[in-house]
Amino acid sequence: MNQDTICAISSPPGSGGIAVIRLSGPAALALADQLFLPGKNGCPVSEQASHSCQYGRLMEEADKLLDQSLVTVFRGPNSFTGEDTVEFSCHGSLFIQQRLIQLLIQLGCRQAEPGEFTQRAFLNGKMDLSQAEAVADLIAAATPAANQLALKQLRGGFSQDLAHLREKLLHFVSLIELELDFSEEDLTFASRDELKKLAGQLKSKLSALCESFRLGNAIKNGIPVAIVGETNAGKSTLLNKLLNEDKAIVSEIHGTTRDSIEDLVNIKGLGFRFIDTAGLRKTKDQIENLGIERTYQKIEQASIILWLIDSTQLSEHIEWMADRIVPRSEGKKLLLLFNKIDKITSEELAVLENLFAHIPGDRIQISAKFGQNIENLKSKLIELTNLPEFEKADTIVSNLRHFEALSAALAAIKRVQEGLQHNLSGDFIAQDIRECMYYLGLITGQISNDEVLGQIFSRFCIGK
Amino acid sequence: MNQDTICAISSPPGSGGIAVIRLSGPAALALADQLFLPGKNGCPVSEQASHSCQYGRLMEEADKLLDQSLVTVFRGPNSFTGEDTVEFSCHGSLFIQQRLIQLLIQLGCRQAEPGEFTQRAFLNGKMDLSQAEAVADLIAAATPAANQLALKQLRGGFSQDLAHLREKLLHFVSLIELELDFSEEDLTFASRDELKKLAGQLKSKLSALCESFRLGNAIKNGIPVAIVGETNAGKSTLLNKLLNEDKAIVSEIHGTTRDSIEDLVNIKGLGFRFIDTAGLRKTKDQIENLGIERTYQKIEQASIILWLIDSTQLSEHIEWMADRIVPRSEGKKLLLLFNKIDKITSEELAVLENLFAHIPGDRIQISAKFGQNIENLKSKLIELTNLPEFEKADTIVSNLRHFEALSAALAAIKRVQEGLQHNLSGDFIAQDIRECMYYLGLITGQISNDEVLGQIFSRFCIGK
Repeated sequence: MNQDTICAISSPPGSGGIAVIRLSGPAALALADQLFLPGKNGCPVSEQASHSCQYGRLMEEADKLLDQSLVTVFRGPNSFTGEDTVEFSCHGSLFIQQRLIQLLIQLGCRQAEPGEFTQRAFLNGKMDLSQAEAVADLIAAATPAANQLALKQLRGGFSQDLAHLREKLLHFVSLIELELDFSEEDLTFASRDELKKLAGQLKSKLSALCESFRLGNAIKNGIPVAIVGETNAGKSTLLNKLLNEDKAIVSEIHGTTRDSIEDLVNIKGLGFRFIDTAGLRKTKDQIENLGIERTYQKIEQASIILWLIDSTQLSEHIEWMADRIVPRSEGKKLLLLFNKIDKITSEELAVLENLFAHIPGDRIQISAKFGQNIENLKSKLIELTNLPEFEKADTIVSNLRHFEALSAALAAIKRVQEGLQHNLSGDFIAQDIRECMYYLGLITGQISNDEVLGQIFSRFCIGK
Repeated sequence: MNQDTICAISSPPGSGGIAVIRLSGPAALALADQLFLPGKNGCPVSEQASHSCQYGRLMEEADKLLDQSLVTVFRGPNSFTGEDTVEFSCHGSLFIQQRLIQLLIQLGCRQAEPGEFTQRAFLNGKMDLSQAEAVADLIAAATPAANQLALKQLRGGFSQDLAHLREKLLHFVSLIELELDFSEEDLTFASRDELKKLAGQLKSKLSALCESFRLGNAIKNGIPVAIVGETNAGKSTLLNKLLNEDKAIVSEIHGTTRDSIEDLVNIKGLGFRFIDTAGLRKTKDQIENLGIERTYQKIEQASIILWLIDSTQLSEHIEWMADRIVPRSEGKKLLLLFNKIDKITSEELAVLENLFAHIPGDRIQISAKFGQNIENLKSKLIELTNLPEFEKADTIVSNLRHFEALSAALAAIKRVQEGLQHNLSGDFIAQDIRECMYYLGLITGQISNDEVLGQIFSRFCIGK
């Protein structure tokens, strides 16, 4: 149980119409009473009903007004954190926000660490750890698909399944450990057949979840698309075209968090992260070669490689480039885009395409400038990401920490299967089951430590 | 009465823990019902009690979740706008915020103009126009004094007094106009003595308010202080010293809205706006002379002029500078700061001070580097702003629009006084009273038009 009361600005940083300052902990109501002067017909905050709000005055001192403000009360355990919680909804000046936090700290409140409200929700049993992590993902989600992914995880998603399977493992491991206690009598409490069945179930569940990570990660962070091509192939025209089509949402997100998701383009609800690359060309210049090395690295990071071709130029380097691009697109999707088709005849295009005939991958003819076939390109990008897989899947893993724990749990359950197959003794099997349980517990937070929690919640924003 | 329902993001722009989306208007509750799915034990938003909140789900479509959110209901007229109002407190991702606004617009909501919620509060009689303007001032206030000023105005401040005096004027003008109706009978309904008394009251009230504007404006926007001095006198060291002393509040405000309040320093609760000037020196260089012209303009804008002197350098230009600074500081406060006193002996300082003996204004010896006498400087700056005037005054005008209307009302009431003194006929006097009333009505909004309202509210932020 946390004995201190924490406070933070929970609305986005900056000045605006309304700012929300939240406090949570055993003294939240009493602290609020010291600052908040109810209007006539009002009552002290500590007497306010849960889930109700009232208007009144926030006082700096007995006779010095700081603001007129709404105050909302959530009484534990029926609050986000599970503790008594108070939210002041004040005028959104920076001065008022900061002064209010100052006053609360003077009264004995502690400024909340990033994610500390959610951490308390986890510690007070309001959500498991993977749900808590979903809160941060939900706030960071910039596309409809990423939003859906985070919501699924927030609502329990696979962690309930895992907790349930872990429960079953616990049952078996207890029985096996009981056998070990009676080892001299050579008893078998745990049905090996049933354990085999459970291990099989777990293996396919965990395999599916592990496999979903590549997609989940791509949805969460944007599907990485490397655009390769010679200078002037029309890359920025193409990007602008794709961006403009969904200006309403993407451009604003763009302006605000430019650094982190630059060139994230929302296509039919999915985020595509377009990775700029230096033009590929044969050169002896050392610095240019460094740039080309970097292009190779970016191709490595991508799931989809767009080879953008200026159809009006007959490049001399087709073979040279193909030698560099094609081997590197193995296991990825390669898409050849013949751009600027508005400027050439279909005969010319046919000649050009023929030069690329031996190169694998889909091809689309476009005019980025006039938006020709851009819809086809979009549909193709969606198709290449294997969206149906996403839509039919109940549970997709998008969190690296979960993926790593799931992979370790999967390895352990495979060892359990092998052990059963080779009739290994119960103590070996029990050890592998315990290990599998440990990793499953890491995901849900049934097993956690301060360091892990610290790492997880430090990535949150302040006030959540 | 407004027939449409408006919506906007009311929390500061950007992503954060919580975002507040507000809707107001006759359809607010019905619209919220279409998006919000209450949890078990919950009820439709339209059945929710005023000033209560509940947790539930925001749905994009019947089976597509957008977010888990709190919804708070304020039933008109007991709301900020006076209309039915709903506030969604959702996860603060940009995607969720924008999607929710999109959905509301699809359902028939209109995106609110800047300040439109406050405008509705005014139009629905929840506050007068000067109070509505105070809402924007309160949000913009960056110092304790500016905050107090806006709060006074928000709580009614002088506009109630003015409305009351306007009421009295109305009484007299009605009587005078009645006299005009019976002009042939030469009756006197309006006691000229009482009217003289009222005009006297009004004149001193309006004069005081007009006079308070210089201070009010300075408090609101920061007291303008021009620092004049030769290069290397230690200006930036001094500014940093002043800034650091109140790092907690100023530096953060600084970082966020750098452009608008650069070099606003909070000294004992008052904002001082330090105006950078180019070094003054004798030169024939045309461009440098242009810079010096600009320095003169900045001195014009200032209330306080700090002449910062490097005590370790014996400038040859003292007389030349004094000729330029002293005449320009008439009606302002001039303060001579002898800086770097840590580096010289008191004998040397005495010699130096002697050279400035004929120059008027206060003087302080400081060492900006070591913080010596900085407290004295702060106290002096506060003293020069005539703070007691602020603290004892009930009402200070800080709004240019109010100042202009008050000035016009004052001119009109002076004409009334003159008219009474010269026994002018009732119709002249009535005309001036009507004019005075008109200008008083502009302040409170008893008289307003769309253009004036448009100008006022366009300066608000979205969502307030």
